[in-house]
Amino acid sequence: MSAHPTAQQPTPQAEGQVPDDAADRVQPGRRVRLAVDRPMRLDSGIEIGGFQIAYQTYGTLNADRSNAIMVCHALTGDHFVAETHPVTGKPGWWEMLVGPGKPVDTDRYFVICSNVLGGCLGSSGPKDTDPATGLPYGLSFPVVTIGDMVRAQKLLVEHLGIDKLFCVIGGSMGGMQVLQWAVAYPESVFAAVPIATAARHSAQNIAFHEVGRQAIMADPEWRGGSYLLEGTRPEAGLAVARMAAHITYLSEAALHRKFGRNLQDRKAITYGFDADFQVESYLRYQGAAFVERFDANSYLYITRAMDYFDLAADAGGSLANAFRPGGKTTPVRFCLASFSSDWLFPTSESRAIVHALNAVAANVSFVEIGTDKGHDAFLLDEPEFHQVIHGFLEGCAEHRGLSVRRRAR
Amino acid sequence: MSAHPTAQQPTPQAEGQVPDDAADRVQPGRRVRLAVDRPMRLDSGIEIGGFQIAYQTYGTLNADRSNAIMVCHALTGDHFVAETHPVTGKPGWWEMLVGPGKPVDTDRYFVICSNVLGGCLGSSGPKDTDPATGLPYGLSFPVVTIGDMVRAQKLLVEHLGIDKLFCVIGGSMGGMQVLQWAVAYPESVFAAVPIATAARHSAQNIAFHEVGRQAIMADPEWRGGSYLLEGTRPEAGLAVARMAAHITYLSEAALHRKFGRNLQDRKAITYGFDADFQVESYLRYQGAAFVERFDANSYLYITRAMDYFDLAADAGGSLANAFRPGGKTTPVRFCLASFSSDWLFPTSESRAIVHALNAVAANVSFVEIGTDKGHDAFLLDEPEFHQVIHGFLEGCAEHRGLSVRRRAR
Repeated sequence: MSAHPTAQQPTPQAEGQVPDDAADRVQPGRRVRLAVDRPMRLDSGIEIGGFQIAYQTYGTLNADRSNAIMVCHALTGDHFVAETHPVTGKPGWWEMLVGPGKPVDTDRYFVICSNVLGGCLGSSGPKDTDPATGLPYGLSFPVVTIGDMVRAQKLLVEHLGIDKLFCVIGGSMGGMQVLQWAVAYPESVFAAVPIATAARHSAQNIAFHEVGRQAIMADPEWRGGSYLLEGTRPEAGLAVARMAAHITYLSEAALHRKFGRNLQDRKAITYGFDADFQVESYLRYQGAAFVERFDANSYLYITRAMDYFDLAADAGGSLANAFRPGGKTTPVRFCLASFSSDWLFPTSESRAIVHALNAVAANVSFVEIGTDKGHDAFLLDEPEFHQVIHGFLEGCAEHRGLSVRRRAR
Repeated sequence: MSAHPTAQQPTPQAEGQVPDDAADRVQPGRRVRLAVDRPMRLDSGIEIGGFQIAYQTYGTLNADRSNAIMVCHALTGDHFVAETHPVTGKPGWWEMLVGPGKPVDTDRYFVICSNVLGGCLGSSGPKDTDPATGLPYGLSFPVVTIGDMVRAQKLLVEHLGIDKLFCVIGGSMGGMQVLQWAVAYPESVFAAVPIATAARHSAQNIAFHEVGRQAIMADPEWRGGSYLLEGTRPEAGLAVARMAAHITYLSEAALHRKFGRNLQDRKAITYGFDADFQVESYLRYQGAAFVERFDANSYLYITRAMDYFDLAADAGGSLANAFRPGGKTTPVRFCLASFSSDWLFPTSESRAIVHALNAVAANVSFVEIGTDKGHDAFLLDEPEFHQVIHGFLEGCAEHRGLSVRRRAR
């Protein structure tokens, strides 16, 4: 299951485990049904029970179950954090950061990552079959929030027998989940690392998401969300959505460095509408590759969850209040990181969170990493960023009393 | 024809004038057929003749024909610069800047603006009928460049009996045309005002254009460009293209100021995919309004022309060389303006032009206007910007020996 020689600890609790059936082979990895006995109430008020969460773990949970790190993935990510992806064959999306000897050291920590509720990579979402009708949910799947995603993760963590996470870490939408964990379950989180994220989705970001959703919904193959039922695929619309979003993940400087105005194989412009420029060909490839692995309705649901995210609104309009549950400063230790060329989640967004944490005298460190790689930098080779994560976790481990325990290699 | 009480001077030459037929009533305004006797060679090598250019003029051409200002419009602009638009009923797109007593003072200058070649608002473009086949051109219309647009404008200016323009002015794609005028016809331009523009389209801007084009081409109603022939309209794709582009015209700060996370009429989020946020509703409106007035194929053609624009490439790789025709410094006086929150054509792009002009010791002034309104600032109420234009034109008028001639009001 893992590309790394990490020991896989058996799940502490076995009830609710889904057998490795054919569906599992299509979407490999671990999975569990949660809220089977008692349904989970979503922010919308709708109750759902027996939903499936796909997850992976890396490393070994220690005897007092105090070394678990929850990794939260971004919009189109999944739970294959630190191993070759079983479907795409590509390296795990955060192998730079997570693995044996890496900043999030799986020789030392027990790492958990689950596909978000509403996703399409193993966890329950709009592409699944509604047991009530025997048909794909489509838009009848309930709209979920970042709060609901984290609620499901909390059930997973409890299912794994863990009362308190050593750390929750993630970038972009993953960072929103980190913030939500810290605010919703401050006693269940020792340390939190929200990266390249914001406490609320900005107007510009909502606007970009809306363009993507409109591109999907404009595709006649979308069929009002019922494309699975009707045997169509809104690939063109989803590809356009991905292309638009992809631009926002990079910086102008990175695009210039990577592509500039370089032409494709042809030496000269063609005076036509083929992909003359490399950047056009690259974008088209990104769009085409994405539709192979992602469900269009899930894209609608997850972007919507991000748009709805607003920690301050949920705390009576004050972000600082969100970090002072019951009038007491949050016990969670925070480390925030932003990237200088990230214009999707600019440093000012992280700073607003830091200011709110400072206002309640919380334990917080913050660094802006200088890079020209844009928002995607959190997924890339950024040594200073990796050092920051390593150092923060080392310090927290000491505070938490986690012994240095390296397995023989 | 004009909302302002400006005297309309009859066109000096009448040949090639198109009679005011039914088609003219659909697309009101002046129009002329150019290159009737001798075809015009496009950058692609294709020759076209007898194409139509729609234009408007404001103010009066003086006796020595030395007070003409060519206004160049942006991607989706038109020639109705300074009068109520006859189709939309909205004010002219640059009434802030152009009109009696305005910085571009139609009491003093003779202002010309033409719809670009390849456009859809009166000038020949892909939506017109190919006389050879009797069918709409669609993608068989030749691909045009900024150079070709300016070439056509030069023919129009000659048709109007003007040897040398007092000034060429425009923002965004209009600024590209201004630069092209100065480089291609340095002896025919006294002063040039390129605003919020660049000497070459950046990788990021090409990427955004490509998203828009892919959105249009992904619409099955586009029919490979033959939608006019087939009686369909790729409205959904064009609307998505416009929505994506529209975000780039504003700044994050402007979007935040205008909309923030404000909800629509509803007081609470709906947990659905309707436009909950005002910014979503605004974008949808922008998309829907745009398809009423713009042709999808023209959008492909004009974005392509911008992508292809690269002044330095045409001058052997050196932008400075572009401003040193025949080894002699350009005689054109330049005034550049950029806007601090414009991330589509950031100040660095203007600065690169200024550096090239400085390198050849050209006459250039440059100002970055501080504003949070983004790229669209060049169309908006920006008093400092308007003062800069006014002052520069005053100075140039003095150098040019234009007498102050105010008509009785």
